[in-house]
Amino acid sequence: MAALKVKGIAFDMYGTIVDVGAVTEACKAVAPDPVAFNTQWRAKQLEYTFLRGLMGRYQDFWRVSEQALQFTIQRFRLEVGPEQRQRLMEAWLHPSPYPEVATALPRLGERYPLAVVSNGSPRMLRIGLERTGLRSHFRWVISVDQVKTYKPSPRVYQLALKQMRLGKAEILFVSSNSFDVVGAKGFGFRVCWINRTDALLDPLGPKPDLTVHSFDELAAALR
Amino acid sequence: MAALKVKGIAFDMYGTIVDVGAVTEACKAVAPDPVAFNTQWRAKQLEYTFLRGLMGRYQDFWRVSEQALQFTIQRFRLEVGPEQRQRLMEAWLHPSPYPEVATALPRLGERYPLAVVSNGSPRMLRIGLERTGLRSHFRWVISVDQVKTYKPSPRVYQLALKQMRLGKAEILFVSSNSFDVVGAKGFGFRVCWINRTDALLDPLGPKPDLTVHSFDELAAALR
Repeated sequence: MAALKVKGIAFDMYGTIVDVGAVTEACKAVAPDPVAFNTQWRAKQLEYTFLRGLMGRYQDFWRVSEQALQFTIQRFRLEVGPEQRQRLMEAWLHPSPYPEVATALPRLGERYPLAVVSNGSPRMLRIGLERTGLRSHFRWVISVDQVKTYKPSPRVYQLALKQMRLGKAEILFVSSNSFDVVGAKGFGFRVCWINRTDALLDPLGPKPDLTVHSFDELAAALR
Repeated sequence: MAALKVKGIAFDMYGTIVDVGAVTEACKAVAPDPVAFNTQWRAKQLEYTFLRGLMGRYQDFWRVSEQALQFTIQRFRLEVGPEQRQRLMEAWLHPSPYPEVATALPRLGERYPLAVVSNGSPRMLRIGLERTGLRSHFRWVISVDQVKTYKPSPRVYQLALKQMRLGKAEILFVSSNSFDVVGAKGFGFRVCWINRTDALLDPLGPKPDLTVHSFDELAAALR
């Protein structure tokens, strides 16, 4: 990894640091097939960020997630009252970090300044990082809300670049999301794809500099 | 429909005038489940237009469709040679209009100037409209290629507005695609949603002025 002489690391939040699949647990209360329900919810949530970004009609990630939930409830023809919806939404405020994250982050944090760069609203990020006990590892917590658009808009990566005060090629951008990998790499960051499930990379642009299965593998690769 | 005093009609192409489901027929040659294969292909094709639009990394719809096909073949773990890929792609050059389109379009064309406003590349639109015999009904054939982005970017609707030389509220924009309905309505057009399958509208913005199941219902509503 001699080529990856970076000076700071920026992490995606949802799907990268924390497991969006864990929201499935909350979906058990309303959906006969909670995995299918949560998969549809997550897919619509992302689709709505892309569409709102492209239309230039930003609403924050909490609102977008509510709208995606509304669609998913209707799609599955479920009856879900306001209190249950609230509980489903609150699963996003109790995120579950992947198991190795809590030990790997401090090891990385000893050597590099760390950032979170997320679609999440400032409130979602603040509460989520506090509850997981991970907040102290990050020098910067950067929400797309500052630029009112969504990844993979280059305006998001530009925001991170500006706040981190490093060069493009000095920042390692770490994400599990294919669109984020492609967007960050196209922008000019060094990129690590955390591919926990041996997923396929969307053929939309340049490939990541590094592909790993976990934060432990990332920490080892940067040693 | 007294409120819908429009002076021109703009139609989406794929899914609205022609049935993208008909591509399934070509998929039978390569996929054990051609419906699932084509559904994935179409979903990725659209996702890639959204992402390329948001990233500002336009490639034309033919190229995007090839990339979505490549992803889909890998996702389904199929072996598909170059000639078979070529044949799958060519299904997009032999589009199948919905059955009532050929009789409804001339009725509409007698009363309004008509446009196609499509994600399709100029070549795809030229060949597709010639082969279906529908070309003569349209005064304008407008491809997003002129502005190098994709629907629902407002730049696409602005292009249509400029070329049609009518006011925003004088144009009825007709699409089956929820994102296109929301985008066109948000832009300021009058909008008709052709909802052939009783699908759900994505809760992303203002609702269409009119919802119909077919071109015949549209023609009747404008009488």
